[in-house]
Amino acid sequence: MKIQRAELIPVAVADPPLLNVMGVHEPWALRSVLRLLCDDGITGLGESYGDVAFLDAARSVASRLPGFDVFNLPAVRALVAEAVGSRVYAGQHGLTGAYSSEKTLATVYSLFEVAILDAQGHALGRSVSDLLGGKTRDSVDFSAYVFYKYGAHIDGRTDEWGEVLTPDAVVAEAKAMVGRYGFRSIKLKGGVLPPDQEVAAVRALADEFRGQPLRIDPNGAWTPLTGIRIARELDGILEYLEDPTPGIAGMAKVAQQASMPLATNMCVVRFADLPPSIAANAVAIVLGDHHYWGGLRLIQSLSILCQTFGLGLSMHSNTHLGISLAAMVHLAAVTPHLTCACDTHWPWKTGDVIVPGALEFRDGSVAVPTGPGLGVDLDEDALARAHENYLRSGLTARDDAGYMRRYEPSFRPNISRW
Amino acid sequence: MKIQRAELIPVAVADPPLLNVMGVHEPWALRSVLRLLCDDGITGLGESYGDVAFLDAARSVASRLPGFDVFNLPAVRALVAEAVGSRVYAGQHGLTGAYSSEKTLATVYSLFEVAILDAQGHALGRSVSDLLGGKTRDSVDFSAYVFYKYGAHIDGRTDEWGEVLTPDAVVAEAKAMVGRYGFRSIKLKGGVLPPDQEVAAVRALADEFRGQPLRIDPNGAWTPLTGIRIARELDGILEYLEDPTPGIAGMAKVAQQASMPLATNMCVVRFADLPPSIAANAVAIVLGDHHYWGGLRLIQSLSILCQTFGLGLSMHSNTHLGISLAAMVHLAAVTPHLTCACDTHWPWKTGDVIVPGALEFRDGSVAVPTGPGLGVDLDEDALARAHENYLRSGLTARDDAGYMRRYEPSFRPNISRW
Repeated sequence: MKIQRAELIPVAVADPPLLNVMGVHEPWALRSVLRLLCDDGITGLGESYGDVAFLDAARSVASRLPGFDVFNLPAVRALVAEAVGSRVYAGQHGLTGAYSSEKTLATVYSLFEVAILDAQGHALGRSVSDLLGGKTRDSVDFSAYVFYKYGAHIDGRTDEWGEVLTPDAVVAEAKAMVGRYGFRSIKLKGGVLPPDQEVAAVRALADEFRGQPLRIDPNGAWTPLTGIRIARELDGILEYLEDPTPGIAGMAKVAQQASMPLATNMCVVRFADLPPSIAANAVAIVLGDHHYWGGLRLIQSLSILCQTFGLGLSMHSNTHLGISLAAMVHLAAVTPHLTCACDTHWPWKTGDVIVPGALEFRDGSVAVPTGPGLGVDLDEDALARAHENYLRSGLTARDDAGYMRRYEPSFRPNISRW
Repeated sequence: MKIQRAELIPVAVADPPLLNVMGVHEPWALRSVLRLLCDDGITGLGESYGDVAFLDAARSVASRLPGFDVFNLPAVRALVAEAVGSRVYAGQHGLTGAYSSEKTLATVYSLFEVAILDAQGHALGRSVSDLLGGKTRDSVDFSAYVFYKYGAHIDGRTDEWGEVLTPDAVVAEAKAMVGRYGFRSIKLKGGVLPPDQEVAAVRALADEFRGQPLRIDPNGAWTPLTGIRIARELDGILEYLEDPTPGIAGMAKVAQQASMPLATNMCVVRFADLPPSIAANAVAIVLGDHHYWGGLRLIQSLSILCQTFGLGLSMHSNTHLGISLAAMVHLAAVTPHLTCACDTHWPWKTGDVIVPGALEFRDGSVAVPTGPGLGVDLDEDALARAHENYLRSGLTARDDAGYMRRYEPSFRPNISRW
């Protein structure tokens, strides 16, 4: 079965001013939607980043995809390799670790792999999880993703969540999120305020949500010494400590002194990072992300590798829409060695491109869609609106730091800042 | 789609008196054929070991398989885990490394995984390689498998290959095999004669087959010191040296001094063996075998793991029939990181259970079958004959050592013997 057309549609959804180590989320989060049109009216959907650098790379593949067999993924991978060459895609602004040509290939290929698996599933009448070996679970647990945030965008646009800059506000946000979606574990995005303030917020969460797994992710904002100190202060409180400090060497220093496991989506971001990380005992939990690890099948292999070396595995998330959530849910469902609830930005989402109803959070979990392929369908009107938003936004790349400078002109993004 | 019946049929094919470290091949090689009968007349085929211990374990699964969904492999895996429990299957007589409950589960599950993938393929009209992610190659290279052998079985039965106990005879056997099948690399099964005689045979092969990759596999028959000495003597001649000595520690000692890579199917035989082997730099090439590593999908993950850690990957073989060859070929086809020609006992095979024609050796390669599933069909008459052979053979387990004692009453199998 051949691919006839590959459409890449940039979209944008309104995003609240969420804070992180690099700055603050801009008013619009950019994503790309890939729609494959194949023989016999079969379609396939993929979703990934929406900045112009990624779109350019993905378009250079999409334009050459017609005529490819949807069952010949290796040929598509070879096409991606040829199309991206030695290009290094650096679109994630420091929040997903180092850039490399290996990661670029993995990132671009992933978009096409997911869409092709969706098309295969539609052609065969089977779900993506069936094609990947079958579900080990019928629903997938996610964690609440609690952010510090400003009360309004620079243009004055507010949102229902309000300003969140204190422990009390963090707890209130978490309560609202847990109340709405039933999450049974909570992650605080840190690296925003001085570490002691973030420790206070975690303690406040621990008081409110007794016994629930808690995590904090400062995105490498701390020095190793600060990481060690905070690890001591949060002893017995955290399920895991995520990326306290950048780099394998720094993480290893913290890991040696920390009582809780260290997790990462920054210092182990491709297969080549695993041997040095394992040798240094730097990381206990890898937060995989099919968007930049090379697709669903490679995360399955990452899971076996992690299991083999006694590492945990969970899932990282950037802002995403329903196609990516469906891919994440199918992937998590077919991955027996998945040791913690996955991350998702879902609660912050203000729109989508899929027909509602296929994916719902209940008790913090999402049931695996049972329809063919990913089990989600495009909502053409919503897609058109999201594309309009993209055009209207005027944005071409994510720039949390540049946007932050509109709030704080002297802001300079840097990790290891405390 | 449900499984309606699972038939496990033990079979035997006549086998020449091939020599190895454990003794000599008995007159009959035992295998098992698994036939699944599913809804809508869909069938699935698997093949594995044929000794009574394996048959017992596999039957305890097969009898409970009816009613299982062919797309729910995780449920089948759970059934296998429950059925085999903590049982340790020890049927391979020291030629495939240590036994463990982990390896037992992997071994029994593999038979069912392959048959179920075949059934999935028939149900969907796609090949097993399509289901595993698509072919990266259209044909798979194999190596000639040269054995020392006796000229006749103990009952006087001879074969076309005659006695092979000298370098000249080894070369003659290799020439016949290469002439017939076109192999472009050659492996000598060693561990049979004192090491210097085997070195002489390898040198004779190198003289005859200039520039072709050569390997020797003494199945751990040597001490580390002997391994180091032989590695020096075969410097520049071997593509790899396979299992010169048993165990990770011993292999690491040899590896430190050897100029050529060391390969193994004995000291790394399950995922748990990889971390210590990698830490010790014991092995450069893992010879995977889906029959005991847990099936086709897990070998795909093994390949990613090997690639990640800079290890080569190739494929081990025991005596096998066409169903296993088809599985090996599909697996090799979907495995980009496969760094050497695979092993196969195929040339020694005297019969089969599949309809001829689907699998042929040309220039040492086998083209990947393109039909649905594994792309091979049972030959009912041949299957019946092979099952008759099994009943007639009176054998219930492979016992190369016991059989050797009928030639040499004082023979005692032991590795590290030289």
